[in-house]
Amino acid sequence: MEKTLASKIIYQGKIISVRLDDVLLDNGKQARREVVEHPGAAAVLAVTDQGEAYFVRQYRQAVGEELLEIPAGKLDPGEEPVACAIRELAEEAGVKPGKISPLAEYFSSPGFASERLYLYLATELEPTAVQQPEDEILHVCLLPLRDAVKMARQGKIGDGKTLLALLLAADILKL
Amino acid sequence: MEKTLASKIIYQGKIISVRLDDVLLDNGKQARREVVEHPGAAAVLAVTDQGEAYFVRQYRQAVGEELLEIPAGKLDPGEEPVACAIRELAEEAGVKPGKISPLAEYFSSPGFASERLYLYLATELEPTAVQQPEDEILHVCLLPLRDAVKMARQGKIGDGKTLLALLLAADILKL
Repeated sequence: MEKTLASKIIYQGKIISVRLDDVLLDNGKQARREVVEHPGAAAVLAVTDQGEAYFVRQYRQAVGEELLEIPAGKLDPGEEPVACAIRELAEEAGVKPGKISPLAEYFSSPGFASERLYLYLATELEPTAVQQPEDEILHVCLLPLRDAVKMARQGKIGDGKTLLALLLAADILKL
Repeated sequence: MEKTLASKIIYQGKIISVRLDDVLLDNGKQARREVVEHPGAAAVLAVTDQGEAYFVRQYRQAVGEELLEIPAGKLDPGEEPVACAIRELAEEAGVKPGKISPLAEYFSSPGFASERLYLYLATELEPTAVQQPEDEILHVCLLPLRDAVKMARQGKIGDGKTLLALLLAADILKL
């Protein structure tokens, strides 16, 4: 346990805010913790009846690379993670699931960020109206799930949540 | 691809810095990107000859919880990821590996953070001098790897890198 002695928000942005905490450790020492506050996010591995999964290819300014990711996005205020997953899947892939179940819930980088990620597996997909956000450019693609799992095992998936979702789905579906 | 029009560092800290970028999208629109710069980190799943793995239990101020994690830490300037993994394993668990191999390399949260994580599997462990850092309080423990993998599959591991390392090791070792 760490006792917070002082806490100061030094940046409040659109997606993140940054907080500096002074904490007291159990050994009596003090330390400064830099904390990035994030509302949390949901991501969804959506698999068609033909065994193909939806991915988005997207340039990520934070890492300076284009990455292959499953549809995902941050939680709106008060939004349930599963509702966020369904919304993002509609916005990014244009489908809605007949069935959706949780795959995992974890902290992406607990050393400095509060972000909690909720992963889902969605099936029984049906088309729905697509409304892509204007401030992102996404290229949607379908890949056979088996091939994507192979890519994950071969180190060809660079995004953490996508890697985890593929490995968890492979476990469940015995791929 | 996004073209960076302007870039401004608004916070430079001990572990992270925060940058605001104005970018031009392929569709001609502009957007603001909040970027948390992080030097990257290495984490290591270290397994004894008896099939037990080292974990650290640690309070994480960023998420307000104590988490069970594999030994890990951020890269020092110019440090090779594998050297970082070996150093952190010595500092946190007091062992050095006879054998260490890469498990994965991925971005923990590419939507807002530059952090790249390098995961390793270490075996043939031998005792080495322990020097725990003073600004962290860690409780080291050994758990049978099979039990830890079961915990990962049952949703009982809350840390992303630990979850990923366990699933990847289970794949390789057929657990």
